[in-house]
Amino acid sequence: MLKTGILGGGQLGRMLLQAAANYPVETFVLENDDECPAAHLCHHFTKGDIKNFDSVYNFGKGLDAITIEIENVNVEALEKLEAEGVKIYPRPSVLKIIKNKIRQKEYYCQHRIPTADFIITNKLEDLNQQEKFLPAVHKLGEGGYDGRGVQLIKSKEDLARGFDVPAVLEKMITIQKEIAQMVAVNEKGDTALYPPVEMLFDPVLNLLDYQLCPAELSTQTLYKVEAIAMAVVKNFQSPGIFAVEMFVDKSGDVFVNETAPRVHNSGHHSIEAHYSSQFDMLWRIMLDYPLGNTDAILPSIMVNIIGTEGYSGPVKYEGLDEVLKIENAFVHLYGKKETRPGRKMGHVTIISKEKQDLLHKSNKVKRILQAKT
Amino acid sequence: MLKTGILGGGQLGRMLLQAAANYPVETFVLENDDECPAAHLCHHFTKGDIKNFDSVYNFGKGLDAITIEIENVNVEALEKLEAEGVKIYPRPSVLKIIKNKIRQKEYYCQHRIPTADFIITNKLEDLNQQEKFLPAVHKLGEGGYDGRGVQLIKSKEDLARGFDVPAVLEKMITIQKEIAQMVAVNEKGDTALYPPVEMLFDPVLNLLDYQLCPAELSTQTLYKVEAIAMAVVKNFQSPGIFAVEMFVDKSGDVFVNETAPRVHNSGHHSIEAHYSSQFDMLWRIMLDYPLGNTDAILPSIMVNIIGTEGYSGPVKYEGLDEVLKIENAFVHLYGKKETRPGRKMGHVTIISKEKQDLLHKSNKVKRILQAKT
Repeated sequence: MLKTGILGGGQLGRMLLQAAANYPVETFVLENDDECPAAHLCHHFTKGDIKNFDSVYNFGKGLDAITIEIENVNVEALEKLEAEGVKIYPRPSVLKIIKNKIRQKEYYCQHRIPTADFIITNKLEDLNQQEKFLPAVHKLGEGGYDGRGVQLIKSKEDLARGFDVPAVLEKMITIQKEIAQMVAVNEKGDTALYPPVEMLFDPVLNLLDYQLCPAELSTQTLYKVEAIAMAVVKNFQSPGIFAVEMFVDKSGDVFVNETAPRVHNSGHHSIEAHYSSQFDMLWRIMLDYPLGNTDAILPSIMVNIIGTEGYSGPVKYEGLDEVLKIENAFVHLYGKKETRPGRKMGHVTIISKEKQDLLHKSNKVKRILQAKT
Repeated sequence: MLKTGILGGGQLGRMLLQAAANYPVETFVLENDDECPAAHLCHHFTKGDIKNFDSVYNFGKGLDAITIEIENVNVEALEKLEAEGVKIYPRPSVLKIIKNKIRQKEYYCQHRIPTADFIITNKLEDLNQQEKFLPAVHKLGEGGYDGRGVQLIKSKEDLARGFDVPAVLEKMITIQKEIAQMVAVNEKGDTALYPPVEMLFDPVLNLLDYQLCPAELSTQTLYKVEAIAMAVVKNFQSPGIFAVEMFVDKSGDVFVNETAPRVHNSGHHSIEAHYSSQFDMLWRIMLDYPLGNTDAILPSIMVNIIGTEGYSGPVKYEGLDEVLKIENAFVHLYGKKETRPGRKMGHVTIISKEKQDLLHKSNKVKRILQAKT
């Protein structure tokens, strides 16, 4: 059995391990918290820091393959492991580009991939000189995740909220739609595209609110989305699964926002709504099986269950019974013991032929299901 | 989090634990083999004998709920645990009836549930006097499983192949169809019926060959199947999930063959083909959530992957790549290291609107996918 390690033990690891149990594979997880969502679902759990060279290197020695749950891992250890023959999904060279937003923007420019105009700021002082560039979004070079490390800088008054470390100041685009396109790439370079999804965000927490699949796009925009996502992924020259997040503006132009070189929140609906889920697909890639079928079984909508504002502590779910009664809803709770405002506690996928049915039920879920204490 | 134990760590436990990871539940498994398919997917694994009173009792003390993967467990320990407040799914009183085929047949008679005529034989000598009752099937009272403990006694010459211990001699029915009906029952006694499935068996190994969902039945026969299954389950007065296996003869009469008071091979297709799978459903029952939706998303067919005749030892799958390329097929391999003839190594579910597509693809799977060494 292939020995495969996952760096990180959150919900992505959890769902990867649920899918792993369909195949003969021996699983390993490295994570600091031995009560994390994925800890009990692997064959071998190692407590350790995914950002530390020695932890990652010692974890990875003797494994056949490694994948990640988050970009913020020790890339140097992965490079050494790769040199020693361990397969890394995605390749460390990709992680180096992705985990630093400055390098990521430079990558898009280098490969002529459309992305919002930007300026690199090394300290707050640099930012203060960019009043004319506003409104813009200030993004931390390294270490941002899930809404942390991103600041809206609409006007001069907001400048002080920027980052005093290397960061990207990105011109704000008048977004008509936000799209995520998942792409799977195997060792041979064969690719498979999932139907793109359309995302709506909570403007306060900058967390995904719900996502519709397939996205409603004109044929022309769909082609652009697919072509751009393919360009992003092909140039990485790495097997793996990738979520390319894009903006579509009012004139139908498409800009890459950022790329996640891993299983991603925007692919959760694929567990029930697609023949091969993003998790299934990554195992197929790592096990050198044929790529799966990315077609939708039915259209779907996905709602994140995030910790309700004002509640921190041991979680109690309000409205869970009512949501579990919804006929075509699939509930995933990640088994996190503690909730805090904005924390991803689970998600609900709804599948249906009717868009109205999807919207109605997802609104119901959002309204009634609360992670409180 | 509810502490829930599973007696047995085979593929049913494995798939139960895959489904458990959608909900907040702490899982425990008792099984003699610490490399069994379910061992690594629970929070707490205990190595021990599910047939031994002390192992089961010590495992169950302190748990909130227990379910089973196989009937052949220590029922006395479960009775003591039940008396001490642990919820058992199904209740030990049901297990007592089911695990002994003689008691099971008597139960059907007592509740006027149609079942094939039978004679109880205590030793081989009793059987030898039943020449006139042939052709018949001789079933071991206790301990039979998956084709073990069942003998066809077609004529006088076969009598010596019977069991020399308490057993049931069941008159052979001219079977037109073999049906399995899954029924879910919660604590309040609410029930949910899955669409019945139609099964075809390998006549040599007496193992399930493939199963089609929904079964093709006249409306009248469907009503009979549902009513009989409900009568079987309601009289148990126990929450849980139940698979009632039935024969339909040429005149459309329905007879109960046997009942499994647990998740069952005949419900595997429900993972992908139904809104709430049998595994999801059992967690809903144990967690006191609302019953799930038993509707089919699409019709389906399920093929068991059984160890190819003539091969014993570390398994290698032949044809796996070709099967993984089939567009609407879902492959489940149970992670068993060794194959032997007839051993259940995995299953493949195919979903499609078209019956012809299901049949064509399932035949392809059966032909090309082999568990060899």
